[in-house]
Amino acid sequence: MSAVEWSNLFARRVSRARVSAIREIFKLTQVPGIISFAGGMPAPETFPADALRAAAGRLLQDGGERALQYSTTEGFVPLRSFIAAQLSRQGIPATESNILITTGSQQGMDLISKVFLDPGDRVVVERPTFSAALQVFTSYQATCAGADTDEQGVIVSRLEAAIGAGAKFMYIQPNFQNPAGITLALDRRRQLVALAERRGVPIVEDDPYRELRYSGEDLPSLMALDVQQRPATSAGDSLGGSRVIRLGTFSKTLAPGLRLGWIAAAHPVISQLVIAKQAADLHTSIFDQMLAHEVVKDGFLETHVPYLQQTYRLRRDAMLAAAPRCFPQGVRWTEPQGGFFVWVTLPGNLDAAALLEQAVRAGIAYVPGVTFFAEDGRPPLPNTMRLNFSFCAPAVIEEGIQRLGRVVAQGLEEQE
Amino acid sequence: MSAVEWSNLFARRVSRARVSAIREIFKLTQVPGIISFAGGMPAPETFPADALRAAAGRLLQDGGERALQYSTTEGFVPLRSFIAAQLSRQGIPATESNILITTGSQQGMDLISKVFLDPGDRVVVERPTFSAALQVFTSYQATCAGADTDEQGVIVSRLEAAIGAGAKFMYIQPNFQNPAGITLALDRRRQLVALAERRGVPIVEDDPYRELRYSGEDLPSLMALDVQQRPATSAGDSLGGSRVIRLGTFSKTLAPGLRLGWIAAAHPVISQLVIAKQAADLHTSIFDQMLAHEVVKDGFLETHVPYLQQTYRLRRDAMLAAAPRCFPQGVRWTEPQGGFFVWVTLPGNLDAAALLEQAVRAGIAYVPGVTFFAEDGRPPLPNTMRLNFSFCAPAVIEEGIQRLGRVVAQGLEEQE
Repeated sequence: MSAVEWSNLFARRVSRARVSAIREIFKLTQVPGIISFAGGMPAPETFPADALRAAAGRLLQDGGERALQYSTTEGFVPLRSFIAAQLSRQGIPATESNILITTGSQQGMDLISKVFLDPGDRVVVERPTFSAALQVFTSYQATCAGADTDEQGVIVSRLEAAIGAGAKFMYIQPNFQNPAGITLALDRRRQLVALAERRGVPIVEDDPYRELRYSGEDLPSLMALDVQQRPATSAGDSLGGSRVIRLGTFSKTLAPGLRLGWIAAAHPVISQLVIAKQAADLHTSIFDQMLAHEVVKDGFLETHVPYLQQTYRLRRDAMLAAAPRCFPQGVRWTEPQGGFFVWVTLPGNLDAAALLEQAVRAGIAYVPGVTFFAEDGRPPLPNTMRLNFSFCAPAVIEEGIQRLGRVVAQGLEEQE
Repeated sequence: MSAVEWSNLFARRVSRARVSAIREIFKLTQVPGIISFAGGMPAPETFPADALRAAAGRLLQDGGERALQYSTTEGFVPLRSFIAAQLSRQGIPATESNILITTGSQQGMDLISKVFLDPGDRVVVERPTFSAALQVFTSYQATCAGADTDEQGVIVSRLEAAIGAGAKFMYIQPNFQNPAGITLALDRRRQLVALAERRGVPIVEDDPYRELRYSGEDLPSLMALDVQQRPATSAGDSLGGSRVIRLGTFSKTLAPGLRLGWIAAAHPVISQLVIAKQAADLHTSIFDQMLAHEVVKDGFLETHVPYLQQTYRLRRDAMLAAAPRCFPQGVRWTEPQGGFFVWVTLPGNLDAAALLEQAVRAGIAYVPGVTFFAEDGRPPLPNTMRLNFSFCAPAVIEEGIQRLGRVVAQGLEEQE
């Protein structure tokens, strides 16, 4: 059977799916000697391998029957309770019944899309926004509309404009956003929650980096602000009434290879997500769930997260210190308070995508910013790029920014 | 936000999704003292916990960087090569590039549905068929049409009739089918592959139980028969030309809790599935993939599979030995050569679903057969039930069939 014959059988939505540009660039940057700011990977030397090894030994020592058998779609109850307790300390009165364990946050986005999106539905996103989110939403044939951001995060009046006649939900990363590294200011968080209420549009709050703050003070999540303004909870559902669906992950605090994420939401949403997940993969690896729980249950994160913050703070600081020394005049960049990414804007109309080939030849890689814009009729900003600082050691970051500075300078010269 | 407000936002397909009846019955049967033939779980005492513990120790001893980091969507290359080599020994000349690792076979069905199914598309299934497959296909708003089966498996002329004006694919479990325990005879396999070719309809061959054969001889898979009849393979794709998409799993040979399955197919299909999987969950737990590979790579299955066969053979034999002693006259049942299930047909119009409550009160549970029929306008067979024999020890199976025999006898008396 030929490729053409197969493609005649594929669903209509398949023609709209596209391979993530980032993952294709990943391949390009596997060349030895290249310093890659293109990925979004945690520092592997921070992975808690010893704690996981000890936990695996304990879980499997008496047969491991529970850790290896089929399990429930909702997820391992003690892990769900752990997450609910964590949320409660953050002002979100969740119980275990508000939590669904997912195969990474990516699956969280996919399940939410499956439950909410019909072809032609509108999703409102930030401009720029997380490219994998765009990929998921468009794979369900939704249209995405972007709302402008600045250093204070997304501009709420632009979100309202993007909602237009209506939208299924708004997708927001409030903290150290991927790709721009920006954090939504407190007053905007309040405005955003009020907007959701006024227009009846739920918020999907994707918050993978929350624990990884290196400076500034924790801000209340959109879900916390939303539930605080509501009257006493409806019977048995402590998030009943909330318009926010919150996504979290262990990919940044433990290890991404385990694929452990979660969704917190009111019961009517969790119920539908469970049905969708049952069809999607029955349940997330119960072995990995129990492993993570075994590691975190006795306060491990209370020392591990500060260690991660310290590690990544040094890397962020290395990048932010090198930038003004190495970048030509006119280059601007964000100063993230946490997370993994800095967003760079080049002067004038210098095209970051066109510059990438030269950059790779000079031994430095990044992701061109155009990847992070919804196809909503407005042009993306071609003079932008995303730089990752979590993966490389500080000295490597310094060297990488030097290389990138030279490439940009040369690009500017050639342009003149 | 109320449940009604939420449901107004759900996608149209959500209204068609239904909770798997089997999983709801699972909950019912967790009552202590009940013997459950309702599940489909492997015997947990067979899980290779020691081998997995040793493997986990090795993987994590020097930082486990690879096992814990983000990885490729396609899956761990050595595990894909292992599966390809296994297929090659079964007459399928696959290479690693024909294999995609999935988060259990369930995800395989979901991804195939996402790639192929538009609303209103037709999928041809067996009658009865695996209920979770029906659930996935209908969640993509496909319609399923059932083709009758007998002790030799699905009747190929009925499949052709069910295709009608066209179908996106046929979904077939060739070996020890769930739920009926039947195996597709060799001549029918050949006819089925010829039918696929003649009508241009691909076959999705789901074969989770292949290794678990307790009597009779291995038969070539549909994919093996399909590739054998084709001319030399197309450039670089050793399954190029094949109309069969094959699903396999480690859930039955290692442990289901790890959620490790795979799809084998020609490159054009694998490429689309990879795009779909990237959006679905980025990749399957690389830790679990490496763990499974570490256990199986040096011939472990060559002793473990015979041990599983011996364990389950005793359980099947216990059920088949008890049935003629305990069941009233007129009850019929299949005699599976492998797998996990026996299919029982009650006399006349005795309704297995209606009998379930009495059965649970008598301390025995099963799945009513109606769960396993496509909603294609033809009535399901209400006098059928699926019995699982993999989970309980032989003595418990004997006791369970005694209880079930009494319940059926009483049901027949009450009917008179």
